[in-house]
Amino acid sequence: MNLTDKPHPWQLAARAEAMNPSAIREILKVTERPGVLNFAGGLPSPETFPIEAMRAACATILAEGSLTAKPSLQYAASEGLPELREWVASEMGKQGATVSPDQVLITTGSQQGLDLIAKVLIDKAAPVMVETPTYLGALQAFSPMEPSIVSVGSDEQGVQPEALRAQLEGMAERPRFMYLLPNFQNPTGRSMSDTRRAEVLAVCQEFGLPVVEDNPYGELWFDQAPAKPLLARWPEGVIYLGSFSKILAPGLRLGYVIAPPGLYPKLLQAKQAADLHTSGFNQRVVAEVIRDGFLDKHVPTIRARYQVQRNAMVAALARELGPTGATWNEPSGGMFIWVRLPEGLNAQALLPKAVDAGMAFVPGAPFYARDPDTRTMRLSFVTSKPEEIDRGMAALGQVVKQALAALKS
Amino acid sequence: MNLTDKPHPWQLAARAEAMNPSAIREILKVTERPGVLNFAGGLPSPETFPIEAMRAACATILAEGSLTAKPSLQYAASEGLPELREWVASEMGKQGATVSPDQVLITTGSQQGLDLIAKVLIDKAAPVMVETPTYLGALQAFSPMEPSIVSVGSDEQGVQPEALRAQLEGMAERPRFMYLLPNFQNPTGRSMSDTRRAEVLAVCQEFGLPVVEDNPYGELWFDQAPAKPLLARWPEGVIYLGSFSKILAPGLRLGYVIAPPGLYPKLLQAKQAADLHTSGFNQRVVAEVIRDGFLDKHVPTIRARYQVQRNAMVAALARELGPTGATWNEPSGGMFIWVRLPEGLNAQALLPKAVDAGMAFVPGAPFYARDPDTRTMRLSFVTSKPEEIDRGMAALGQVVKQALAALKS
Repeated sequence: MNLTDKPHPWQLAARAEAMNPSAIREILKVTERPGVLNFAGGLPSPETFPIEAMRAACATILAEGSLTAKPSLQYAASEGLPELREWVASEMGKQGATVSPDQVLITTGSQQGLDLIAKVLIDKAAPVMVETPTYLGALQAFSPMEPSIVSVGSDEQGVQPEALRAQLEGMAERPRFMYLLPNFQNPTGRSMSDTRRAEVLAVCQEFGLPVVEDNPYGELWFDQAPAKPLLARWPEGVIYLGSFSKILAPGLRLGYVIAPPGLYPKLLQAKQAADLHTSGFNQRVVAEVIRDGFLDKHVPTIRARYQVQRNAMVAALARELGPTGATWNEPSGGMFIWVRLPEGLNAQALLPKAVDAGMAFVPGAPFYARDPDTRTMRLSFVTSKPEEIDRGMAALGQVVKQALAALKS
Repeated sequence: MNLTDKPHPWQLAARAEAMNPSAIREILKVTERPGVLNFAGGLPSPETFPIEAMRAACATILAEGSLTAKPSLQYAASEGLPELREWVASEMGKQGATVSPDQVLITTGSQQGLDLIAKVLIDKAAPVMVETPTYLGALQAFSPMEPSIVSVGSDEQGVQPEALRAQLEGMAERPRFMYLLPNFQNPTGRSMSDTRRAEVLAVCQEFGLPVVEDNPYGELWFDQAPAKPLLARWPEGVIYLGSFSKILAPGLRLGYVIAPPGLYPKLLQAKQAADLHTSGFNQRVVAEVIRDGFLDKHVPTIRARYQVQRNAMVAALARELGPTGATWNEPSGGMFIWVRLPEGLNAQALLPKAVDAGMAFVPGAPFYARDPDTRTMRLSFVTSKPEEIDRGMAALGQVVKQALAALKS
């Protein structure tokens, strides 16, 4: 062979040729103008970060004579810290799911869980089902394994059981799994009711369609805890993803996967190949922080804060957008409200005008795997104070009204 | 379609069907018997971990009124912390490589760098070249993308340029890259001389074969710094991997990739999909630890410690194994010595006897992509005190002598 006539040495894998910069990432750049009230991000409020508790935990772990200092800084088991795995199993027990610590894999954020699942379960062109719309980060994590993404008809409670059944009946190949975010979904803020969970899972079980249940927001409920997790209802057919990002801090990059025993070894091998193990120091810090029931006191303060802000946004939306014909939901937890603009408007086209007017949102279109509803947008209510929410929604209302007026003229 | 006749819902991807438990992992389980002197691990010495410096850094970052606390705990840029990226670029400059901070991607350990490279550059069945033997973790990271691994003939300086040329001339497809570990390689401890680097790169450039240069051990030199990195010699044809695991602590899971500008965006997208970003808290802690030249004082203490232990092991090997006909190298840095047993012996078969005698090593065979030299073994000299090294090598000498005697009888 004569290779010497090819001067450029790097040849991309086909999957990398197909990679595109994240649409959201590009959009968020537009929104990061100083002075603009930002409802576009997906960040938790930094006011909720447990800085004091972390300071104490770090001091304890790294104290002179500490027995945990060296182990927390050394290479560690790919499975994760036993204390954390036990804690996860015990918490899931409180939610009605029987989980052994042996089923818990600690991951570098729950995003990594999605990456590992993709590697273990997705062959090229294999179908994977998602909600309409769905979490963009999941699509990005699945995409290097080149699945065929199938959007399932969804309503204000997520996937519709009849639509799911009709789609499954028409498919030539069983999807590898359906990806669901049952609690306070990103981007819509919607949740699956107890009945909806039962109905959807009945179809899944009938067709042997396994489920990946992603639950980063479940603890952020306002009035009552969400319905029982899917994992509790179908232990052998559900992989569950959890995260410490929204109840402690995302900068720690700590999440977990709960997998049926038969699948666990494959996920573990993928984990080992991906980054050997998740930071043992961060795992030890979190184990120390949560050891004596810290979260039982801490999480309610996050709920209370976010509920006040949710209330402020719902009130402001009614005031400012009510007259325009826009619609929105009133999520019972989480971080996001989903707004649908009046007919004729396009959220993406409206964004530059909103930024000029001093507020930013995320258009909903990128969250659809296909056939986007271009009238939709996502608003985060958790990083802005109520008076900022008032000002931001007023600006949005103005921009929408102007756009409607322009439409009619 | 009728899917309802398939009771078991999970279908593995083909790449996951092919995953096998790590051979090393299984071997290391054998070695973890209480009281056994362990030369099998690949762990740095915990005595070198900068616990005091980390305690101070954590206290500073998390202090009341600290401006870095909240940002370090929030979601952050996928590229990594600017201070760390600048530090990496500046350090590479000292080694003769012109690197912009924009080329530096902070990763969750350098293992993640290997995972990202595999995703971006390896198509199924595409050839990838490796040394003989090579780092097992790299083979594990590449394997989910299903490359065809090609082992290049190697000697005590790594890849042989003539062997490389002959192999490339016989290939129908240009390999995606060659993976090299030029300094104190894992598992052999060997290094590429300045001349060897130039010779190998000349062949690579002639054939347009790009290089992935992995350098976790380069700072652990004893008498003089290693030859100039490959990156400095061929900037557009080399991806470079570095790590904080051996100069600070592996439990932080902090590494980095330096990529040519044209490749960087693809690696960044793969990084974002894999875990969004590496822990901002850990990045901030390390930036704080190394800020005022800490490593200039710290790393020499690691070198001095490891050199004493290397000396002890070389002396003990000469004493205990010299008479048996075994051979070994005398690495000028790093963590490992590579031993070749006398003809007729098999390291894997010898391991249980060695463990019974109170010491453990890693057989060399799993480090070969194919055609293993079953007489080889890897010994780590960094986690045992000189007197433990003496006792361990004495035990190994006894076991080898007994095996030789059994062979003759």
